[in-house]
Amino acid sequence: MSESPWKSSTDRRNEREEKRIAVLRTAAQAFNEVGYYNTSLDDIARRLNVTKPTIYYYIKNKEEILFECVRIGLERLDSASNDVIGHGGSAYEELVAVMTAYVGVVTMDFGMCVIRVGEEPLTEESRRTLRALKRRIDLKFRSLIERGVAEGSITACDPKIAAFTLSGALSWIARWYQPDGALDADAVAQQSIALLLNGLRPR
Amino acid sequence: MSESPWKSSTDRRNEREEKRIAVLRTAAQAFNEVGYYNTSLDDIARRLNVTKPTIYYYIKNKEEILFECVRIGLERLDSASNDVIGHGGSAYEELVAVMTAYVGVVTMDFGMCVIRVGEEPLTEESRRTLRALKRRIDLKFRSLIERGVAEGSITACDPKIAAFTLSGALSWIARWYQPDGALDADAVAQQSIALLLNGLRPR
Repeated sequence: MSESPWKSSTDRRNEREEKRIAVLRTAAQAFNEVGYYNTSLDDIARRLNVTKPTIYYYIKNKEEILFECVRIGLERLDSASNDVIGHGGSAYEELVAVMTAYVGVVTMDFGMCVIRVGEEPLTEESRRTLRALKRRIDLKFRSLIERGVAEGSITACDPKIAAFTLSGALSWIARWYQPDGALDADAVAQQSIALLLNGLRPR
Repeated sequence: MSESPWKSSTDRRNEREEKRIAVLRTAAQAFNEVGYYNTSLDDIARRLNVTKPTIYYYIKNKEEILFECVRIGLERLDSASNDVIGHGGSAYEELVAVMTAYVGVVTMDFGMCVIRVGEEPLTEESRRTLRALKRRIDLKFRSLIERGVAEGSITACDPKIAAFTLSGALSWIARWYQPDGALDADAVAQQSIALLLNGLRPR
């Protein structure tokens, strides 16, 4: 079968989705670097070498961009943990894997945007949607900790405070981590997680 | 000596400073609750039962308010640790005291504003001033950790990553802690710090 010089509708859909993600990713990078309020749609268009009307073909406005960036970041945080939970390890082992995946996401564009920008600029309805996603991620941390405490693989603690303490320490990495800095994300993840697992007090 | 019905200039200065702090504190509370961009000077005036011109007697504009709120928060984080460092304890003991003082500050209005709002909305010059203060606090964490590792009271680790991990976990408390919630700040501090000191892995 010879190839048609016209793209199939599936190809066109995929291409459109790919370009939409490129717009969102570029926006997330700008938000992370200079802040949401300091970034205009013109800035985003300029970074992509396109005109503002081109941007409007993929998204409605700046609020929608932020909503989508944070939503994608949270979905990735959520699915990163789905990939590692329930494979028969101890809760401790699974928690280590979840924490590692979590750092992987918050050191990338969309995940970083969840922490550096967050949902404050959005409408109450959008914020509700995003908060529900956050709660789902938090509850996964909590239930892993609960299971670990019950089976003895995790030290006795209040699972709610422990979950916030862990996700706080790991989320904060998005604030100080520099993608072009001397430390790579894997090294940061490994050392930060080791400290949380072993504690400051020598064993 | 009979009391003069006119206030002394010292009294007047103190009273003015007290009222200025009240304006700043009320603003910090509003920023922490609904966000910086969602708070107007009118909102702040309304919360204080005064008119907007009264507010202008104490501060120039909203940017100055945020700058002062974050500056005061950072000064308190800094001086909280000054009070506990250098009293002859081990670096581990001093670090525990610094961490406890840190949580005390980030769960109060000005300290919470450092974490919840931060310096993004400010000019580059203001941000530089605040970043210098942050660096000073970070270096205190680092040098305590370095000393602790050297003397053996703190487990071997990279002091830079460890300092960020600790301050991240403790700073994050400002994001989720609810001043009117079921847990009081002391309980949160105690449990969160215990986890960081002892680690998730049972001893």
